[in-house]
Amino acid sequence: MPTMQAVQVANAGGPLELVERDIPEPDAGHVLIKVQACGICHSDSLTKEGHWPGLQFPRVPGHEIAGVIERTGAGVEGWSVGQRVGVGWHGGHCGHCERCRHGDFVLCQNAQVPGISYDGGYAQYMVAPQEVLARMPDDLADVDAAPLLCAGITTFNALRHSGARAGDVAAILGIGGLGHLGVQFARKMGFVTVAIARGQDKAPLAKQLGAHHYIDSSAQNVGESLQALGGARVILATVTNGEAMSAALAGLGVDGKLIMVGVAQEPVEVPVMQFIMGRQSVQGWPSGTAADSQETLAFSAISDVRPMIEEYPLERAAEAYDRMMSGKARFRVVLTPGKH
Amino acid sequence: MPTMQAVQVANAGGPLELVERDIPEPDAGHVLIKVQACGICHSDSLTKEGHWPGLQFPRVPGHEIAGVIERTGAGVEGWSVGQRVGVGWHGGHCGHCERCRHGDFVLCQNAQVPGISYDGGYAQYMVAPQEVLARMPDDLADVDAAPLLCAGITTFNALRHSGARAGDVAAILGIGGLGHLGVQFARKMGFVTVAIARGQDKAPLAKQLGAHHYIDSSAQNVGESLQALGGARVILATVTNGEAMSAALAGLGVDGKLIMVGVAQEPVEVPVMQFIMGRQSVQGWPSGTAADSQETLAFSAISDVRPMIEEYPLERAAEAYDRMMSGKARFRVVLTPGKH
Amino acid sequence: MPTMQAVQVANAGGPLELVERDIPEPDAGHVLIKVQACGICHSDSLTKEGHWPGLQFPRVPGHEIAGVIERTGAGVEGWSVGQRVGVGWHGGHCGHCERCRHGDFVLCQNAQVPGISYDGGYAQYMVAPQEVLARMPDDLADVDAAPLLCAGITTFNALRHSGARAGDVAAILGIGGLGHLGVQFARKMGFVTVAIARGQDKAPLAKQLGAHHYIDSSAQNVGESLQALGGARVILATVTNGEAMSAALAGLGVDGKLIMVGVAQEPVEVPVMQFIMGRQSVQGWPSGTAADSQETLAFSAISDVRPMIEEYPLERAAEAYDRMMSGKARFRVVLTPGKH
Amino acid sequence: MPTMQAVQVANAGGPLELVERDIPEPDAGHVLIKVQACGICHSDSLTKEGHWPGLQFPRVPGHEIAGVIERTGAGVEGWSVGQRVGVGWHGGHCGHCERCRHGDFVLCQNAQVPGISYDGGYAQYMVAPQEVLARMPDDLADVDAAPLLCAGITTFNALRHSGARAGDVAAILGIGGLGHLGVQFARKMGFVTVAIARGQDKAPLAKQLGAHHYIDSSAQNVGESLQALGGARVILATVTNGEAMSAALAGLGVDGKLIMVGVAQEPVEVPVMQFIMGRQSVQGWPSGTAADSQETLAFSAISDVRPMIEEYPLERAAEAYDRMMSGKARFRVVLTPGKH
Repeated sequence: MPTMQAVQVANAGGPLELVERDIPEPDAGHVLIKVQACGICHSDSLTKEGHWPGLQFPRVPGHEIAGVIERTGAGVEGWSVGQRVGVGWHGGHCGHCERCRHGDFVLCQNAQVPGISYDGGYAQYMVAPQEVLARMPDDLADVDAAPLLCAGITTFNALRHSGARAGDVAAILGIGGLGHLGVQFARKMGFVTVAIARGQDKAPLAKQLGAHHYIDSSAQNVGESLQALGGARVILATVTNGEAMSAALAGLGVDGKLIMVGVAQEPVEVPVMQFIMGRQSVQGWPSGTAADSQETLAFSAISDVRPMIEEYPLERAAEAYDRMMSGKARFRVVLTPGKH
Repeated sequence: MPTMQAVQVANAGGPLELVERDIPEPDAGHVLIKVQACGICHSDSLTKEGHWPGLQFPRVPGHEIAGVIERTGAGVEGWSVGQRVGVGWHGGHCGHCERCRHGDFVLCQNAQVPGISYDGGYAQYMVAPQEVLARMPDDLADVDAAPLLCAGITTFNALRHSGARAGDVAAILGIGGLGHLGVQFARKMGFVTVAIARGQDKAPLAKQLGAHHYIDSSAQNVGESLQALGGARVILATVTNGEAMSAALAGLGVDGKLIMVGVAQEPVEVPVMQFIMGRQSVQGWPSGTAADSQETLAFSAISDVRPMIEEYPLERAAEAYDRMMSGKARFRVVLTPGKH
Repeated sequence: MPTMQAVQVANAGGPLELVERDIPEPDAGHVLIKVQACGICHSDSLTKEGHWPGLQFPRVPGHEIAGVIERTGAGVEGWSVGQRVGVGWHGGHCGHCERCRHGDFVLCQNAQVPGISYDGGYAQYMVAPQEVLARMPDDLADVDAAPLLCAGITTFNALRHSGARAGDVAAILGIGGLGHLGVQFARKMGFVTVAIARGQDKAPLAKQLGAHHYIDSSAQNVGESLQALGGARVILATVTNGEAMSAALAGLGVDGKLIMVGVAQEPVEVPVMQFIMGRQSVQGWPSGTAADSQETLAFSAISDVRPMIEEYPLERAAEAYDRMMSGKARFRVVLTPGKH
Repeated sequence: MPTMQAVQVANAGGPLELVERDIPEPDAGHVLIKVQACGICHSDSLTKEGHWPGLQFPRVPGHEIAGVIERTGAGVEGWSVGQRVGVGWHGGHCGHCERCRHGDFVLCQNAQVPGISYDGGYAQYMVAPQEVLARMPDDLADVDAAPLLCAGITTFNALRHSGARAGDVAAILGIGGLGHLGVQFARKMGFVTVAIARGQDKAPLAKQLGAHHYIDSSAQNVGESLQALGGARVILATVTNGEAMSAALAGLGVDGKLIMVGVAQEPVEVPVMQFIMGRQSVQGWPSGTAADSQETLAFSAISDVRPMIEEYPLERAAEAYDRMMSGKARFRVVLTPGKH
């Protein structure tokens, strides 16, 4: 096995830089992963631009990691060398805080994030604690699995915990990195699936992803259009625009719930009377744990849910990053260090 | 039996007027009720001031009615003359609309309200459809039952459907007509009960009603005070002030939910990031059906929950109404036509 | 419009008899339906053999009815002549009993059943109360809709209320009239779908219906086979054999639930320790209401769930009935009076 | 601090023996607890009689432990010397198995039990892993807390997760160590509380514990008596007799659920038709985690739920054990090594 590897490092707002580094040894309870694919997520800008409070530089970004276990540290149980695994946003929990004591790891008060708390997946190798590993289905390609570990788990987990039942109307607000997966999941869960995005050009794509209905929010009133379908039992808001979320609330049906997974700066404005007369709600949903990731991957494999991706070699990470941040990628950009 | 009765009628914004009227005959499926007590609710102003669209005048207000069945119309089943019954805000449903077909009567698209859709309880007698009757426990006085049929059911029903479990922190925002019942219900359901109101003078009352903790929102930061108690699993917002509701959101704990039962004109502003990181929600709750009323009365009887009331004879309805609307009553004003 | 019609009547254990009768007039709140298709269900034997207590003869059997509204009685709202509708096992509720007051019509203490409480669908025309009508999707054929109104609603409704979530393992015990629909529903709801039946010959069919896995209960241990798949989150028991249900309990995973929709005479035997250590449960499920039927039809239409049927003209009802009761039909037999 | 302590050890079916031993040092992640009180539980016989497969002797029994942290091992976070803590049946989890990865520690596939997997609380000192510690409310005495950590958590946790809501009928089957706590919890959660036991002599006690109703199962038909109260929404079965559980099923109301927390050898026999027509269920419930224990203690403290106990000094453990096993204790026996 080699001892050196290529990694892309972020440095407080500067450009990504390709450097050579030692391949690290896994500590007790950790594994060394040979990275096959790593998705680029909008929140990688927290690392690259240094917006995460207290971030230590240089830091290797990347939290949508698919790879193979190369080495196991002491005390690792249930994982073996050669096994394919994934790691997502949830990069570690303390086990001691009140949330961990309740088994609610995703809200661990000392949660870690790969690419922020420690070096992530823009690299040939990385180290992760065993408790954040997800098993990978045999028939799911690494490049497909990578975006499912963040964009995928967030939408899948939110939808399956939404309280909506098969046959209910589920609307996906925003057809981008998260939304194009949300539409597929909603359809495969048996919802009457509505895709909402700006512009008529996304209509054919929405149908192809499985949407029964498409609403062009630049030309149609979202609330009225949803009411014409009976009102939404769930609206999964993948946009990062509070106004767009607020506007969509008029489309909720009886017992309808808007679930926020995209972070908006401005508040969502809830109309009190409408909500009382419809028993409606707005809820936030925080992604999921390694077990949720594993179930996302398993569901995707068995239900033929796949991200639409653009692949880049690790060396071209800077270009890939810009492509993702430009909003032009359809819909996720994936680095492929395994093909280095 | 007499043929004439005294009633108080509203006339498009004018004063309440005491008039004599025929005692009506119950139609098929309806019962004639001898009114023993009728609570005055803030929403009676919708009738008195004529703010309800399409309201027909003159109209007898009143939807917190406790009485005795005096006569039954054709086809009435399961109810008999002499039986004590209650009628609340939910005054009838069509049985045909989509919500009724789902058994969700409270959201009937053609719902009726006593005192608005037909003559209510500011009277010696009134007629109601059988499907809105609630059985009255023997050991619950009419004057106590009356406010439970609107202020009571709303808070009881919202709390028992909140998803919170015994031992969780439940905060009641606002200690008035609804809130002083909400505090009692929360305590008797096993919640760690927090009362929130303006001013230190309500602290002793809150404790007496069963609150474990009191927060004076005029002197303390509500959010921080609730977080000091671990964060609220549920906040029952009985106030009619959107800003106060928005401010309280900072007090939600993990999985916390603010339930709106008071109608505010201004929207509630939801902080997206906080909600995602806490899996929190805001929900509206629309009172309940006759079955819910019946269960509210039964629970109140068995758990010693009672409203604090001021009694007035029917003749003094105008004075009683002003007393209620002034906000000075502690906490509900009840007319007693049965003592006429 | 004609005034006479052909109907098949049951007479206390004797053979079905084809007779001519007046076409009835719908009473207030009722509609006259021109029957296009009527499924034959095992429970039609309750009528034919006279096993339902207090049944009045002669009686027209049939509670899986698809047709067109021919005439409406007084007071019918929301339904119009020419509209396609369906009627299932739930043939009427009283509106007055405790369950009806809770909106829980399916458990009405005075529930009616078409073909038992009044004449059913083995006929050219029949009358039904408006509250049991289900709207029919345009693109669902009458002969396909008929069995969905009993075998379909039962399995669809049980599965969507099971608490299982997309990606969970759902096993369908028994691949017959109910089970072959249950497998399709489970797959279209996103479950990892397991079909369990006797014999290897049903394996190809199970896969064709959408099952991911097939267990031959005559050759394999059902419990062990399910555990090899991770244990079932839900087992939908469509068989009528208590022993087979009891044997399947060993296949429940953590939080697993066996749902009984098939009636067995002998009890299901619950192993206490296993259930405690797995937080498992057994539950009974009672079909559904007209609203549930409507949602079953809508889901089937949009998800391409269809029964496998054999069609017979109304005149050959006796032969069709024997075919169904013989257990040889694949899988439902449907009369087509509309083609008469 | 002393270096030696007194402990009571079990030896494969022989009598408990009081011996002197070294006070152990806590390993990393563990704490040394000075035991103030330790309840005796029927399942201590698994240790004493050697019925737990693979048990190592000699072994100190005891899993209802209230004490004070005397020393902390390396890496202990959030716990400090001098802090009062409790330890119950759940004595450790692996963190690696599928259930632990789901945060479902109580069903950990490698779960440990104090007094079985390692030395328990029939001692002056014991060592426990930090993840099983529960914080102790200030105003809860050690001797009261001890039985709450097993008998208490089991009934509290089952009831609060039962799905029943305030005002529903909850019946406690069996008034012994678990049941006498279950009755108190049910009452304090706002249930209409029914106590069921053999003999009329327990009636006054049941009322004193908070039961609204008492059913003498030796003289009354349990099913009929519960139906006369409207049918039970939940029956908490604390008995260890499958026949008694089966007989109680007839008392379930609509949506009623019998929850098994007591282990019976013989199966519970579920009547299929009744369960379908009432949408009823039977479920097993497996106690709870350290977080659940902590919430049980907090609820008990705030709601004045206390066990009825008999205290014995550690030296008289053999006598105390016999007293508990004889079934004559009212209702839990607690050793008090802290008073040694």
